[in-house]
Amino acid sequence: MKNLWGGRFREPMDPTALAYSETIAVDSEMLLDDVWGSEAHAIMLGACRIVTGDDLRQILTGLLDIEREAREGRFVLNVEDEDVHMNVERHLTGRVGAAGGRLHTARSRNDQVITDTRVHTRGLIMDIEAELIELQKVLLAFAERHVDTITVGYTHTQHAQPISLGFWATAYVQMLMRDLTRLVQAYEVTNVNPLGAGAMSGTAFPIDRRITTALLGFDAVQEHGLDAVSSRDFAAQLLGALAILMSNLSKIAEELVYWSTYEYGTVQMSDAFSMGSSIMPQKKNPCIAELLRGRTGRAYGLLMELLTNLKGTPTGYNRDLQEDKPPIWQGARLAISSLGAARGMLQTLRVDEARMRQLAGANFATATELADHLVRARDLPFRECHRIVGRLVSELIAAGSSLEDVARARVLLGDLGVDVSEDELRDVLAVERVVDSHRSTGGTAREEVTRMVVAGRARLDAHEQGLVARRESVRAARARTSRVAEAVVAGRPVHEALEPDGVPSPEVVR
Amino acid sequence: MKNLWGGRFREPMDPTALAYSETIAVDSEMLLDDVWGSEAHAIMLGACRIVTGDDLRQILTGLLDIEREAREGRFVLNVEDEDVHMNVERHLTGRVGAAGGRLHTARSRNDQVITDTRVHTRGLIMDIEAELIELQKVLLAFAERHVDTITVGYTHTQHAQPISLGFWATAYVQMLMRDLTRLVQAYEVTNVNPLGAGAMSGTAFPIDRRITTALLGFDAVQEHGLDAVSSRDFAAQLLGALAILMSNLSKIAEELVYWSTYEYGTVQMSDAFSMGSSIMPQKKNPCIAELLRGRTGRAYGLLMELLTNLKGTPTGYNRDLQEDKPPIWQGARLAISSLGAARGMLQTLRVDEARMRQLAGANFATATELADHLVRARDLPFRECHRIVGRLVSELIAAGSSLEDVARARVLLGDLGVDVSEDELRDVLAVERVVDSHRSTGGTAREEVTRMVVAGRARLDAHEQGLVARRESVRAARARTSRVAEAVVAGRPVHEALEPDGVPSPEVVR
Amino acid sequence: MKNLWGGRFREPMDPTALAYSETIAVDSEMLLDDVWGSEAHAIMLGACRIVTGDDLRQILTGLLDIEREAREGRFVLNVEDEDVHMNVERHLTGRVGAAGGRLHTARSRNDQVITDTRVHTRGLIMDIEAELIELQKVLLAFAERHVDTITVGYTHTQHAQPISLGFWATAYVQMLMRDLTRLVQAYEVTNVNPLGAGAMSGTAFPIDRRITTALLGFDAVQEHGLDAVSSRDFAAQLLGALAILMSNLSKIAEELVYWSTYEYGTVQMSDAFSMGSSIMPQKKNPCIAELLRGRTGRAYGLLMELLTNLKGTPTGYNRDLQEDKPPIWQGARLAISSLGAARGMLQTLRVDEARMRQLAGANFATATELADHLVRARDLPFRECHRIVGRLVSELIAAGSSLEDVARARVLLGDLGVDVSEDELRDVLAVERVVDSHRSTGGTAREEVTRMVVAGRARLDAHEQGLVARRESVRAARARTSRVAEAVVAGRPVHEALEPDGVPSPEVVR
Amino acid sequence: MKNLWGGRFREPMDPTALAYSETIAVDSEMLLDDVWGSEAHAIMLGACRIVTGDDLRQILTGLLDIEREAREGRFVLNVEDEDVHMNVERHLTGRVGAAGGRLHTARSRNDQVITDTRVHTRGLIMDIEAELIELQKVLLAFAERHVDTITVGYTHTQHAQPISLGFWATAYVQMLMRDLTRLVQAYEVTNVNPLGAGAMSGTAFPIDRRITTALLGFDAVQEHGLDAVSSRDFAAQLLGALAILMSNLSKIAEELVYWSTYEYGTVQMSDAFSMGSSIMPQKKNPCIAELLRGRTGRAYGLLMELLTNLKGTPTGYNRDLQEDKPPIWQGARLAISSLGAARGMLQTLRVDEARMRQLAGANFATATELADHLVRARDLPFRECHRIVGRLVSELIAAGSSLEDVARARVLLGDLGVDVSEDELRDVLAVERVVDSHRSTGGTAREEVTRMVVAGRARLDAHEQGLVARRESVRAARARTSRVAEAVVAGRPVHEALEPDGVPSPEVVR
Repeated sequence: MKNLWGGRFREPMDPTALAYSETIAVDSEMLLDDVWGSEAHAIMLGACRIVTGDDLRQILTGLLDIEREAREGRFVLNVEDEDVHMNVERHLTGRVGAAGGRLHTARSRNDQVITDTRVHTRGLIMDIEAELIELQKVLLAFAERHVDTITVGYTHTQHAQPISLGFWATAYVQMLMRDLTRLVQAYEVTNVNPLGAGAMSGTAFPIDRRITTALLGFDAVQEHGLDAVSSRDFAAQLLGALAILMSNLSKIAEELVYWSTYEYGTVQMSDAFSMGSSIMPQKKNPCIAELLRGRTGRAYGLLMELLTNLKGTPTGYNRDLQEDKPPIWQGARLAISSLGAARGMLQTLRVDEARMRQLAGANFATATELADHLVRARDLPFRECHRIVGRLVSELIAAGSSLEDVARARVLLGDLGVDVSEDELRDVLAVERVVDSHRSTGGTAREEVTRMVVAGRARLDAHEQGLVARRESVRAARARTSRVAEAVVAGRPVHEALEPDGVPSPEVVR
Repeated sequence: MKNLWGGRFREPMDPTALAYSETIAVDSEMLLDDVWGSEAHAIMLGACRIVTGDDLRQILTGLLDIEREAREGRFVLNVEDEDVHMNVERHLTGRVGAAGGRLHTARSRNDQVITDTRVHTRGLIMDIEAELIELQKVLLAFAERHVDTITVGYTHTQHAQPISLGFWATAYVQMLMRDLTRLVQAYEVTNVNPLGAGAMSGTAFPIDRRITTALLGFDAVQEHGLDAVSSRDFAAQLLGALAILMSNLSKIAEELVYWSTYEYGTVQMSDAFSMGSSIMPQKKNPCIAELLRGRTGRAYGLLMELLTNLKGTPTGYNRDLQEDKPPIWQGARLAISSLGAARGMLQTLRVDEARMRQLAGANFATATELADHLVRARDLPFRECHRIVGRLVSELIAAGSSLEDVARARVLLGDLGVDVSEDELRDVLAVERVVDSHRSTGGTAREEVTRMVVAGRARLDAHEQGLVARRESVRAARARTSRVAEAVVAGRPVHEALEPDGVPSPEVVR
Repeated sequence: MKNLWGGRFREPMDPTALAYSETIAVDSEMLLDDVWGSEAHAIMLGACRIVTGDDLRQILTGLLDIEREAREGRFVLNVEDEDVHMNVERHLTGRVGAAGGRLHTARSRNDQVITDTRVHTRGLIMDIEAELIELQKVLLAFAERHVDTITVGYTHTQHAQPISLGFWATAYVQMLMRDLTRLVQAYEVTNVNPLGAGAMSGTAFPIDRRITTALLGFDAVQEHGLDAVSSRDFAAQLLGALAILMSNLSKIAEELVYWSTYEYGTVQMSDAFSMGSSIMPQKKNPCIAELLRGRTGRAYGLLMELLTNLKGTPTGYNRDLQEDKPPIWQGARLAISSLGAARGMLQTLRVDEARMRQLAGANFATATELADHLVRARDLPFRECHRIVGRLVSELIAAGSSLEDVARARVLLGDLGVDVSEDELRDVLAVERVVDSHRSTGGTAREEVTRMVVAGRARLDAHEQGLVARRESVRAARARTSRVAEAVVAGRPVHEALEPDGVPSPEVVR
Repeated sequence: MKNLWGGRFREPMDPTALAYSETIAVDSEMLLDDVWGSEAHAIMLGACRIVTGDDLRQILTGLLDIEREAREGRFVLNVEDEDVHMNVERHLTGRVGAAGGRLHTARSRNDQVITDTRVHTRGLIMDIEAELIELQKVLLAFAERHVDTITVGYTHTQHAQPISLGFWATAYVQMLMRDLTRLVQAYEVTNVNPLGAGAMSGTAFPIDRRITTALLGFDAVQEHGLDAVSSRDFAAQLLGALAILMSNLSKIAEELVYWSTYEYGTVQMSDAFSMGSSIMPQKKNPCIAELLRGRTGRAYGLLMELLTNLKGTPTGYNRDLQEDKPPIWQGARLAISSLGAARGMLQTLRVDEARMRQLAGANFATATELADHLVRARDLPFRECHRIVGRLVSELIAAGSSLEDVARARVLLGDLGVDVSEDELRDVLAVERVVDSHRSTGGTAREEVTRMVVAGRARLDAHEQGLVARRESVRAARARTSRVAEAVVAGRPVHEALEPDGVPSPEVVR
């Protein structure tokens, strides 16, 4: 079988070379995107009178057939045809004859493949966003549930200050909100239309790129032909966003792995998200959290894979760029499954509130508060108070005691020249009071955490509405393309079929 | 000398440990930022009546002294004080006594260091943007100069289609425009105020974070305390943007390296951007382009450095995060110098227009046009025309000829069943005509390239105005802080000194 | 269905969690390795009298059955059993009953999985070595064929000095020889036996790790239990070696991509290793070389994936480590296919010797030789000669001429104070003479290149013999295990079955 | 000032270009290496009669002067001379006149710079090895001290089995031993002599590369000229080894960070390796361990930086390769300081043996042992015993109890159909007995750990002797070069000065 591009070739491809270059498995994920792109391109060719009404009807008849088979899983891609584009074109010509050979007018695989890739990638981005929003909802509910669960906050993994567990959970909500923003930014740089760039320099055919932009649900034309076929920065931007997202998930994972140890004992994983040992009967391992942490490396590796690919490759489509899709597909799959795993883990997590409360009081986490109190009540400079409390802590540790031994603390403070009563100390060091006093913006006090939960939910709602609107816009574009194609097949002229919206008129370029 | 935090410690730091952890060299770049942050924090403490007017006056007197010395390069950082923060505080206390010890009230190094880092980083981002805009201007001027310079466009580094050199240059303008957008996005995620987060959980002191936000020129409060001290995704986002930017510059570098070879011979580097060989007297090497290409690796490495750092570190400030600054500083320096090098290289580049024109016609770059012509003039399916022209090319190559041999091409086409006159062929294959016929949106035709130059300049202007506005806003905030500080030192009450804008009232949080 | 490790669990795994953690697809590649490992472990248990002869016979009967089905592709892995180990154990118990439950005595999945991984990885390394050796043979044959093909050598991609094409090819032989050494080093660190480490701390059962070491064809015991289950540096070392190997292949790819351009025109890819364009009928693209270059990124990404995984994970098997296998499998597949593609491309490459010869003389590549000649013949300092020839080149370029214009060169040299005859110049600048005069060790002279081809072939033969010996040793170990297992099943006592070599006696540890 | 290579240039370098390309700061680290290389090259030129005895004497007189000034820190590198090589040559010519211009005969900066780099790098590798050996000695001493300190071993960071702390320490000794091997492998690939490669193709001067090989202390000639100037895989191999080394150190760091938490409480960092908080008076943070963990990212980044650089760069020296030195220098500095920090931290670490012992018994770590006991004593299949003990654990947890409640365990086992006495249980579950029973090769029993300490020390001694021998060999080569140079300056003919060893005769190539 001769390749469709084989006119000037005298020898067939070497099997090793074919195996090294074919992309059937990767391409099969975007078969329906390719067919959609071809439908839109054909309709545009018809609307611009580059192909006749008859030819258009035949082409669309064939494409709708292929679409149907693809949806039903009956369209089989043939490795010898290298890629999804050549498979579709050959099948089309097989069905509708010479008219099929007109589909590729004013189009190159260079703009076709990147069109398909962008259409498919934007869908993946929206899938990731949806999962990310679900995880944040779970975190918000978790935060709400634990707005009064007192625990210890860590810096350097050492006890720092008492906080509420709800406060901890809202920190992740904030981080993930920025991940969501980065995904939206990646979406925006992705959802532009390269179709019409041709091989690289546009075309002399009187095409109208606004039509395919509208039919394919793109936000704008990606105008420059050479840029359109050469650039993959949208993919690098997405993989960068996913690497950062996974770095954030790796932090949750790390914390849950340690919190579920015997030593911390502050949380317990559900049996449903743990696994046992083949040899040690007592083991319940936080495997899902560990995998989440470990798979962070995959996200980093995929980013590095693509960046390396882009280094030093000249403009113009180069075959190196074929390798953009595996990291995008894999990165999206990784993010979606990881977000789901994190969500399930958090939803089923059991919290040991008593242990948390105990830790909050056990190890000097209120020392800053004592220093702050001396600043306020004794009008001493903070640095001086810091020094005094530091000495106090040092003495208490030497005595095997803690700030909970108020009597001893009082005596030691007296030795350091500070006179406080036991009642005053007891009041200052009361963990619940300390937590609730941190009412500065973004502090751990109940009212602040509650405010942040409400604000977070509002921002999340706004994001979700944006996502729904984008999904709907894509869905509508897909539906319109089908409607037009079916109308043409049914015999309506393409210009009428494009009604009521008609052929787009305002120039939309970016 | 005892560390300021050393209350509870009984042994001094080991010299190895101090050498491993001190950050003087890195911190010295943000000395002025640290002083600004302290001035703003002190003013806020005064405005919120957390320190008295007297103490405030003393603190600000000391800080203004330090600022002056720092500006004059006379403020020497001492390694034994570990970092810039402790150096400033110790000097302050040395000058103004006990009042200096009140500066750190309601503040932790955790929020202080990330405040300084964000202030310094936003400045670096704006410096990069400025350089990027200059490079784009040079590319736009280059494009304008070469809107009629015909050359060959490549795909797979093989001759593809004739284009204008101006078209090539505008492709880079488009790519770099997205880099500019990514930098602005990185700026937005950077320029938020973490000060007031305290160690992690906020504070019980009645601070007002809007005041420091306004005085430090931040766009918003970064509200969540734990998030504020734990997160470095802004740095990863910036380094991701720089990695992509460098990947784009590496493409220019690669193209210029090859274009300046004997074999291509389409451009010549200026002597001023080339270097000779110590042994080969004839050599003129494109060293700047090569370095630009090679240093792309550094940008990738810095991104990987930070991402690795973030993997699996729990929330709460961890000392690992100290290592955020070296990659930011180095990445910014790399981007700025690379953009400047690229600009100089392009500005002084000599173009061999005759050689470019010759290549455009020499090697079948108009073959697509011939196929397209047959589609239009003979109403044949494109795929059929592709096959015919492919055979024609194959025969011409076998005969050692090219499409410029119109007579032979006519005969061969006749053999393939297509009857065309020599005049028709000559007209169709005229390179200038081909270029100018590619008038689809984003095509290589003169009018499209000219349109894109104009549009690019407009977008660049808008970016530049945004940059100028941001720079001005930062400058104004710096000036206001100084003005307030000086007024307080001169004896005015802090609330009056904050006039005319007063203490900010609307809650600005993100 | 209850997990085999599920004694202490009260809830089943969540489907999301199972999907996130199961490894069936990855594990299926090492099914036969797992069965081999179990056979060896069972034989050892029998030889050490930890299981009875009867139980051993039943276990081995079952395992041989499973092995047979696996070889015939009839053994289906069940996702609900998570991994290959649990699948094999469950099937075994299903067939032979309670005896099957004795197989896991003194073994953990922790040591089992890393045993399987090492056995499988060593096979992959040998497969890569074999492909690498084949590529080097092709390069050596290519070098031999082109020992007299004169071309220009480049530095900075600028013409540097004339060389033979054979010289160029032998440079790659040298580079790849070091890749081969790195693979052997990776093999050595891989082929040690972790089985017997148990969960991490060894076992109280009186096992003899030398027996499994011998039966599984390992070079030595990896003695330390905690190290054995925790460490994956062997995988990182292999992926590092593959990243460097791919960087070397990317250089060949880059050179062939450019050499096959119209501008260079020094080589032509076979049609069988090229591809056409869907739109441009004239195109013949070096797609295989481009893919080779682009896929280098994948090798870098896989290395970075694993290194990230290892960062900060504590000792003791952690589930993160499950993710060691995908990068190893993928990296090996990538290397093997890339080496094959490079080989095919080189074998079918057509060289344009006339073009190469022309380039060698066209652009001052002999200038160094002229300077060297002046040093020798006129006793001038080299630096002075360099300056003179530099001026000469500069004047010739200004005159649009080259060193081939001997008459003009003579006049210009006279102006610079050096008196040479045209004959002397012609002789000095004769390209063939220049190439052949570079007789220093490792120079481009015919005799040196020929010597290096012979030496390279000898080193390659030695490597190949080493590879064959390792393969044979592994094959013999596999055969011995089968022989012993079959003998036991046939009723012979295990100690007899282990004859003639018997139970290994000398302690082999590393 | 005109560049030494500037003969053919008509314009000076642009300041931007010079700033972008100069390497003075990086090169200054290898100034003495460059001078040594020039001395050796000059001696070789003299011995091969390429320069006269008089010229040689003058050259060496100048070089010895420069060497003296360099050693005393008085030789200042000038940025306008770009690099160390041009600085040295210009100074030399300034001192000894025309003879200085003869030094560069038969040499290029291409082979010169990589010679300097290899000489400097091998020294850095040996410095790293020395630090690594010191760390391993500390670990061995630590292991010896804690051969009887019982603690709990972890898998999945969950309690797995009781081990000795000495066992844990010896695991790191084993890991680091492989790092040592990788460093030696990197040394071997580094320590070969590229000098004599010339620009790329060798030279027609009758040089003898064995002489410089011997004088510079290289193990062999790196024969192929093009390979010698193009290849940087030695650097990538080294950076790969350092990345793996840092990944191992990051594990120690992670473990010590967590072990020193309040929750674990098994170790305490010395005050000398900890730091306090500016706000929280009670804090003692494991900053050195955190930095060690965080800086792992730097090692990964440096590796990625170099690998990216190498991707797709063609053979022949390219200026991209200038960027090989920063990652090598930085990587070495990072490794050396990190190894020192780790050593100091471990040497001063306080271990809480009581807490460790308590953890070992507290949480079912002996459950495997109970299952194993039932296998041995009741002849039940292991899988059955695993199930029984799993149920037992589950019941005990539900009852808030542990295996230390032998009475309850006995009753529950009875319910599960297994009849054991309390004495039997107590004996089986005794933690010390369990540890000591794991006597399989590489197990945690005292005798095995002791054996591994002894064996580790022996291997380390062998490594150290190898290192000492290599250091001595380099030192001797340096001394010989000086001796010969001084003898020539003093008036002895170079051939005599090379006595007693004379000019090397056997061909040493690799």
